Amino acid sequence: MELWYTERHTPNVGLIVRVKETIFVGRSAYQSVEVIETIEYGKMLLLDGLVMTSEWDEFIYHEMIVHPAMFTHPDPRDVLVIGGGDGGAVREVMKHGTISRAVLCEIDGLVVETCKRHFPEISCTLEGNEHVEVVLQDGIRYVEDKSARYDLILIDSTDPIGQAEGLFGADFYSKCFRSLRPDGILVAQSESPFYSLELILRMKKNLEKAGFPIVRFYCGSVPTYPSGLWSWVMASKRYDPMVDFSPKRVEERAVATRYYNVGIHQGAFALPEFFAMEVGQG
Amino acid sequence: MELWYTERHTPNVGLIVRVKETIFVGRSAYQSVEVIETIEYGKMLLLDGLVMTSEWDEFIYHEMIVHPAMFTHPDPRDVLVIGGGDGGAVREVMKHGTISRAVLCEIDGLVVETCKRHFPEISCTLEGNEHVEVVLQDGIRYVEDKSARYDLILIDSTDPIGQAEGLFGADFYSKCFRSLRPDGILVAQSESPFYSLELILRMKKNLEKAGFPIVRFYCGSVPTYPSGLWSWVMASKRYDPMVDFSPKRVEERAVATRYYNVGIHQGAFALPEFFAMEVGQG
Repeated sequence: MELWYTERHTPNVGLIVRVKETIFVGRSAYQSVEVIETIEYGKMLLLDGLVMTSEWDEFIYHEMIVHPAMFTHPDPRDVLVIGGGDGGAVREVMKHGTISRAVLCEIDGLVVETCKRHFPEISCTLEGNEHVEVVLQDGIRYVEDKSARYDLILIDSTDPIGQAEGLFGADFYSKCFRSLRPDGILVAQSESPFYSLELILRMKKNLEKAGFPIVRFYCGSVPTYPSGLWSWVMASKRYDPMVDFSPKRVEERAVATRYYNVGIHQGAFALPEFFAMEVGQG
Repeated sequence: MELWYTERHTPNVGLIVRVKETIFVGRSAYQSVEVIETIEYGKMLLLDGLVMTSEWDEFIYHEMIVHPAMFTHPDPRDVLVIGGGDGGAVREVMKHGTISRAVLCEIDGLVVETCKRHFPEISCTLEGNEHVEVVLQDGIRYVEDKSARYDLILIDSTDPIGQAEGLFGADFYSKCFRSLRPDGILVAQSESPFYSLELILRMKKNLEKAGFPIVRFYCGSVPTYPSGLWSWVMASKRYDPMVDFSPKRVEERAVATRYYNVGIHQGAFALPEFFAMEVGQG
């Protein structure tokens, strides 16, 4: 018997992956949480039936949501990750020796528990690290704390449907802006430029409305995500990732990566012409 | 009734695309040739059941196999395309005002005929253009003509199985080397860096063995191809695409593109770390 998992990327195209076995099936107040073991991609985490991460290519998404901003900022100490319950973003953040406090704010405790148990190589820094704090709360509520100040806020959200929708809005971005230091940076995953240009344009507008003077999109290749090309947006108060990035900093911090490097940083902000034209970044 | 086309990218993962109707089914001496109309990607050309091109994303592959070399060379006049029977590469070549002769050498006349009929926007320069010549012959034989001299040879082949296998070998590359002018450039499609690193390393070795002093890989995103990330290799006698590329040339020739631009040219040669390490291009 052959078992295949199918994810429809649109109603008319999709990815199929052969499954060895179902490892875990659960349901929280927010979503279904499933882990499957596949032949090609190792274990995969599914939320509401959609691929969140795979052992095979998780390094790309997690390196790309973290390192471009971490290396644009000269001295990132306090970092907030919203979503990202698998712990992959926090793991990459903690590779930089600059960090004094990394907070993971994930709404769904079941995601964190499931990843601690089934994806130890992704969630490895969530336990037993004095600089890492895990908060199980809605990120929109969490950034209402007016006393907190961060150098970086990373929005590692699911797709903009259901409980994640508010994480793409101008109100939320304004609260993030207020919680960032005067040279702080926000990064958010912004879906596929092939399928989600409308959302991308809305995010740009909302980030500008929230007060960020610098808003730059960048791309990376994630084979298990729709279209294989993924995008992120960096919204910054002072540093421009295309101007203030320093290759010397990459050398000095000596962070081990398998996708990100100096050339990838510089090349990622060079957008395909159709995307560049839409967002006016050429 | 829902009809779905499935392409397995490996025995254990694949792409599924919903099909409106089958437009053409044929068989030549070399392969099966099929055209399907899909809802998401428009018409798609399948050879031996594998996706060769789709109306939706063909611009990316065709721009990327052509423009990086065309803009690295200061004055490309004589170009040979081997394979590429759909005509997409020739269409992109002909956007440059420099061309005096473009030869398309395709082994399979049925591919050319099918694309002329069903993909007029891709094959549009194959007929009625005094600078374009279509030759129905094996490319390996064609480059044995010792009198021909080209500025560019583009190897727009199918996967390295069956009749295309010879197009990845050192013997064939040596013949191409001989057919190129002293500042000539060869470009070949080199599959996905996620699935075909072994082939990529073999191509590099074979191109160096054939005498090319400069061998550089580059990447682009093609959603309908395995992994969504595709690679090409540029083997050059004199010009280095990372050094001798001139943004001014792009401005002057004013070629209309939807994927390629100056930033994409520069960024495409910046390889993901895992790929850069394998081929020693970092």
